[in-house]
Amino acid sequence: MSSIFTKIVQGEIPAYKILENDDFLAFLDVRPNAKGHTLCIPKKEVDKIFDLEEDTYLALMAFSRKVAKAIEKAIPCKRVGMAAVGLEVPHVHVHLIPLNEMNDMNFAQHMALSEEEFKEVARLIKNQL
Amino acid sequence: MSSIFTKIVQGEIPAYKILENDDFLAFLDVRPNAKGHTLCIPKKEVDKIFDLEEDTYLALMAFSRKVAKAIEKAIPCKRVGMAAVGLEVPHVHVHLIPLNEMNDMNFAQHMALSEEEFKEVARLIKNQL
Repeated sequence: MSSIFTKIVQGEIPAYKILENDDFLAFLDVRPNAKGHTLCIPKKEVDKIFDLEEDTYLALMAFSRKVAKAIEKAIPCKRVGMAAVGLEVPHVHVHLIPLNEMNDMNFAQHMALSEEEFKEVARLIKNQL
Repeated sequence: MSSIFTKIVQGEIPAYKILENDDFLAFLDVRPNAKGHTLCIPKKEVDKIFDLEEDTYLALMAFSRKVAKAIEKAIPCKRVGMAAVGLEVPHVHVHLIPLNEMNDMNFAQHMALSEEEFKEVARLIKNQL
């Protein structure tokens, strides 16, 4: 069965998209640790990040850096944190999280945003790309 | 003042080193989230990961991937997680953490290891490089 992220890539599930090219997609995490929390994924479904071919992995990391720099300009924060965990969705995803305190890296807590707030966050980040 | 990591690079503070080249160093985190928790740093002291030049950033990520693959072989775990946070030490460091559960990504909890245990963990990982 396709991962929830493959369904986003294929347009079966909607997402607040930030940046897309032939190989990668960035979109807002709908259960954000902090406002602006974005996921960067390879469109091809692979479970573990270090199982990606080196070229693909490095291209994903370059793509993530570009998105992170836009988040840093768009969202007030001390810096943008990065994480790859992957225990919950078996499809590589790089978390980019605007950090103001250590607890913003705590994946056990999430904030709720309205559809309008998600759209505004996505607009702000895209404006910096 | 030099960061604690620069002092490790310069040999002023000891560390359980895993891998080193001209530009990067990997060593065990002495306050590990889980056994095998390793830090990969650029020897040159820069505060924020996304402020690294793209070439340096990508070389650090390639270095981290090599170390992560060795950790994955050496330490029983479901996968190796990766994180860059940086709120506590202002010198870029990529955390590589053997994950068995989501809480292994929780930076608020640490485990204690003896010197002998650290040495053994370092030996196991280096054997896979």
